[in-house]
Amino acid sequence: VVSKLPQTGTTIFTIMSALANEIGAINLSQGFPDYDCSPELIELVNKAMKNGHNQYAPMAGVMSLREKIAEKTEKLYGAVYNPDTEITVTAGGTQAIFTAISAVINPNDEVIIFEPAFDCYAPAIKLMGGVVKSLALEPPNYRIAWDMVKRLINHKTKMIILNSPQNPTSTILHKDDIDELSALVKNQDILILSDEVYEHLIYDGETHHSMARYPELQQRSFIVASFGKPFHATGWKVGYCMAPEYLMNEFRKIHQFLVFAVNTPIQYAIAEYLNNEATYLGLPDFFQQKRDYFRKGLEQSRFELLPCHGSYFQSVRYSNITDEKDAAFAIRVAKENGVASIPVSAFYSKGIDHHVLRFCFAKRQETLDKAVDRLIKV
Amino acid sequence: VVSKLPQTGTTIFTIMSALANEIGAINLSQGFPDYDCSPELIELVNKAMKNGHNQYAPMAGVMSLREKIAEKTEKLYGAVYNPDTEITVTAGGTQAIFTAISAVINPNDEVIIFEPAFDCYAPAIKLMGGVVKSLALEPPNYRIAWDMVKRLINHKTKMIILNSPQNPTSTILHKDDIDELSALVKNQDILILSDEVYEHLIYDGETHHSMARYPELQQRSFIVASFGKPFHATGWKVGYCMAPEYLMNEFRKIHQFLVFAVNTPIQYAIAEYLNNEATYLGLPDFFQQKRDYFRKGLEQSRFELLPCHGSYFQSVRYSNITDEKDAAFAIRVAKENGVASIPVSAFYSKGIDHHVLRFCFAKRQETLDKAVDRLIKV
Ligand SMILES: CSCCC(=O)C(=O)O
Ligand SMILES: CSCCC(=O)C(=O)O
Repeated sequence: VVSKLPQTGTTIFTIMSALANEIGAINLSQGFPDYDCSPELIELVNKAMKNGHNQYAPMAGVMSLREKIAEKTEKLYGAVYNPDTEITVTAGGTQAIFTAISAVINPNDEVIIFEPAFDCYAPAIKLMGGVVKSLALEPPNYRIAWDMVKRLINHKTKMIILNSPQNPTSTILHKDDIDELSALVKNQDILILSDEVYEHLIYDGETHHSMARYPELQQRSFIVASFGKPFHATGWKVGYCMAPEYLMNEFRKIHQFLVFAVNTPIQYAIAEYLNNEATYLGLPDFFQQKRDYFRKGLEQSRFELLPCHGSYFQSVRYSNITDEKDAAFAIRVAKENGVASIPVSAFYSKGIDHHVLRFCFAKRQETLDKAVDRLIKV
Repeated sequence: VVSKLPQTGTTIFTIMSALANEIGAINLSQGFPDYDCSPELIELVNKAMKNGHNQYAPMAGVMSLREKIAEKTEKLYGAVYNPDTEITVTAGGTQAIFTAISAVINPNDEVIIFEPAFDCYAPAIKLMGGVVKSLALEPPNYRIAWDMVKRLINHKTKMIILNSPQNPTSTILHKDDIDELSALVKNQDILILSDEVYEHLIYDGETHHSMARYPELQQRSFIVASFGKPFHATGWKVGYCMAPEYLMNEFRKIHQFLVFAVNTPIQYAIAEYLNNEATYLGLPDFFQQKRDYFRKGLEQSRFELLPCHGSYFQSVRYSNITDEKDAAFAIRVAKENGVASIPVSAFYSKGIDHHVLRFCFAKRQETLDKAVDRLIKV
């Protein structure tokens, strides 16, 4: 068969995690914690299974979970979503992103993305016959130049994909970005896909500018979020999508034939876990402590620390150390120094290489200590 | 937005299950058991979570599970699949089907399906720009007329979708079907998507003619199977796809960006559960008992029982009772008699209505008793 995605290889996450396992390096590449989720959450899943919640969930998700998502969203961002028609539980954030793109992108539609970009956006767009229009952002601040975005917009522009807090750059949208974005899309038929899976991982008291806060943006947005990331259970694969009904109708047409429904006992468990809002309100502090600890350690190294406003990733620039390409350098640091990272060039489509590596700091203190000990030797 | 699937409504399963819940009817519509999965299996999931298996599984699935799948396949069907490159764990059979179709169907490719057909095939094909070529089969035996299939084949034919045991008709492929199929595709560039989610639900000592048994078919097939159906846990959403490496490469390109990976603890649990082959070898007897019991009960009714060779569905024809359309009749039987079923016309694209309802018999004996008591009053 002729490949539909000839340029697509194995994701960098799979490659670097496999390398880390193979050579026994500390794995700060793929984003997942090396500590466990709450025993209470595990017990809630166990309880749901024992209570017989083991058959198909409703297609859109267990209602009590959708209600909790609506409550949380209203409390945090002031937006009212109808759990019946505007919220759908998904098999992780990735499935939500793929489904939203599939639901609205037609052949030749243009989609604007900002690079470095999480690697699942472009393949989904291309699979639907859409055209990726990427704007490359630059370290150290990776700010979006909105006048450049404006130049990319034309009558074929169907969607803009945002991601704040951003993976891999750890940047966040600020209020002036929101203002620029609002002005840009005003009176235009442009949709927004807002990947907010790191919504609760935001530091220094900054505000998460969810699309849900801004009615004129909210009404054209698919908002994607995750439970695996905030609740330290990336392997459970439960996330969700929120969108106004006219968009959610289209989303569900795909969702019901793509996966039909999502793991039932885990939905019940998370619904109950969300009763206690401390489960997510405490997350910024929890992760900021790790960020600060890791940054402090890395200050002894030769790496240039880039800013980290959100997500659980810390990027570093190493142009002062070597001019190796970052894919080669990431492999060398894994093999010679025993710490696996993600080369940020993997998230640029055009081979742009700013000599930046990304490290995941969602790790135990001992792990961060060990990693720092090794990284200061680079 | 303009809908990409304008003809697509909510699946009949969602509609009938919602109706059943609303009016308190016995729900024999959507296919799931009203008894629980094995407590041992629940305990294995609990153990996996407590052992810390809560982070991302490898993209293709937990290796011990893939190895068990390969073992089972070789033992049952004689085919050797490489767990490393030819088996991928999916979020249920539906995700596997959607992914396989997405991986190989291009605009204008034709795909042959047999109706009545499970309702997720056609939307996935259309979403990829493919063209559905459906052959309508007729009760009571729903045999495939292979000379008619031959007439549908041309240079645009990319794939044939098979489903044995078949949902909703409960028919199975026989050896002569395999011979006809083999002759048809010989020397042709035609792929097969074989939906075998009911592989273990086959009765009267019949053989499941998996594509994995026939090397010349196997080498062009995606084979899709499920753990939710056989293990009475439809809400866990774990299935898998097997295909030769050249096809699996394309499958994984989509899979990794569609869902990335599948629930980790459940994969560990099922891998361990599969150590005991009685867990699946006992299924034909278990379900045949239910089939026989339900059929015996329904013999007292006015319905004409159609043959049931596999799956956990029993269809009945009611043309002797009324000439109502089967969607209307199904709703009336749910409301007036208190038993929800699936109108089989929902699985024909062209409104064909043979006056057939489908009942799921994966239910406790008391439930079947109550349902029969009500159905003999129709
Ligand atoms: C989907 S696997 C990778 C996890 C992740 O989000 C990351 O490492 O960026
Ligand atoms: C995917 S939901 C429906 C379950 C099922 O396979 C059926 O009832 O036919």
